[in-house]
Amino acid sequence: MAQNIYDNPEFFAGYSQLPRQVDGLSGAPEWPAIKAMLPDLTAKRVVDLGCGFGWASRWFREQGAASVLGLDLSKNMIERARADTKDAGIEYRIADLETLQLPEAAFDLAYSALTFHYIRDFERLIRTIYAALAPSGDVVFTIEHPIFMAAAHPHWIMDEDGRKTWPVNGYSLEGERRTDWFTKGVLKYHRTLETTISTLIDAGFELRRIKEFAPTSQQIAANPDLAEELERPMMLLVSARKR
Amino acid sequence: MAQNIYDNPEFFAGYSQLPRQVDGLSGAPEWPAIKAMLPDLTAKRVVDLGCGFGWASRWFREQGAASVLGLDLSKNMIERARADTKDAGIEYRIADLETLQLPEAAFDLAYSALTFHYIRDFERLIRTIYAALAPSGDVVFTIEHPIFMAAAHPHWIMDEDGRKTWPVNGYSLEGERRTDWFTKGVLKYHRTLETTISTLIDAGFELRRIKEFAPTSQQIAANPDLAEELERPMMLLVSARKR
Repeated sequence: MAQNIYDNPEFFAGYSQLPRQVDGLSGAPEWPAIKAMLPDLTAKRVVDLGCGFGWASRWFREQGAASVLGLDLSKNMIERARADTKDAGIEYRIADLETLQLPEAAFDLAYSALTFHYIRDFERLIRTIYAALAPSGDVVFTIEHPIFMAAAHPHWIMDEDGRKTWPVNGYSLEGERRTDWFTKGVLKYHRTLETTISTLIDAGFELRRIKEFAPTSQQIAANPDLAEELERPMMLLVSARKR
Repeated sequence: MAQNIYDNPEFFAGYSQLPRQVDGLSGAPEWPAIKAMLPDLTAKRVVDLGCGFGWASRWFREQGAASVLGLDLSKNMIERARADTKDAGIEYRIADLETLQLPEAAFDLAYSALTFHYIRDFERLIRTIYAALAPSGDVVFTIEHPIFMAAAHPHWIMDEDGRKTWPVNGYSLEGERRTDWFTKGVLKYHRTLETTISTLIDAGFELRRIKEFAPTSQQIAANPDLAEELERPMMLLVSARKR
């Protein structure tokens, strides 16, 4: 079973105060870039893997999705998502993506935001998603970028000019990474870009787009703290289509 | 016109002594990984973009290629390639990839090793290659990895544990990078992985594979200096197919 940090009270208290949890999708600077990668939602059956409070699940329905199944490991998350939603077209369920079972060819879009880097067996998950998608179905997901995740000590350093610089080591050594984020020892799994893309292609997907999220100049003008995101990508956005 | 460092005597003298120039393909640790990405060569018409001394051009013919056109900006390189080749099936020509013109649908494979990061207008080049390939033709190329190229000062540093670490900054800021390599101010063009992959897909290619070259444990046993390549990828290998 995946590590369930989201039901750790200390973690959950801190996490719930993040702008993207308080303000929803508009609090996530990468959201406009994700939106541009999504297919038309009209009449689509969507599964939202790691749905959290359900912000995206509700948005899919507003865009015309026929139904949304929101899945999350965290009881805290699912209870809050259910409490915030009055829509018979959305179902929220507790589920562990490491052992996920889904009906075959039952969805047109599988979506996931910042969840797959917690999953040890990415290949199993991608094959499960592939089988669960109808022909020409899409998978769109975001993960922490491997440049961001690789190093033993992933934090800003300064180069010889005093410029914010991100350290990379152990890039080709995939597997567990532990970091402190609201709580100690949050467990994530580093994978190279090669592995992420190869896993999709080998499962039968056609890669449609990757984006290495960088803020626009307008976003930086509105929030100067975002400028450092130009130095190294923190997030990788991926879309692929079932052949 | 692309910067022609290869006809700078100081550069050429140093470059000619690299293991991959003295020993050919077996001197390039990434060669086995490239070979695994290449299609069957039998009866194929190949264009080798940045062919250098012609090591790969000759190998393609040994594998059964019908013809090879080797192109390089450097007069030094082309003269040496011609002197080393006795094969009417290979033609070597001086050409600038920035202004390259190729006949339409005339090739089955476009190959390039460690050349495209010298090219300013990558999109023009990829569209030219696309047009020059027959239907279902392949492009297979290697470039310096953007993790390796991005930083203002791309060299090893130590992390707080004394571990070899590679600095990344300016990753999202594409364009010129100048480094000293056998001579001062070698000009390269940094592009994100997003841009490299999007340019291929938008030109009409289907991405088949990327590899972020890492040495095998056997390669490290034979040459312990290669172990540092596990810390960060120096080379990106790409294969894509014309739809």
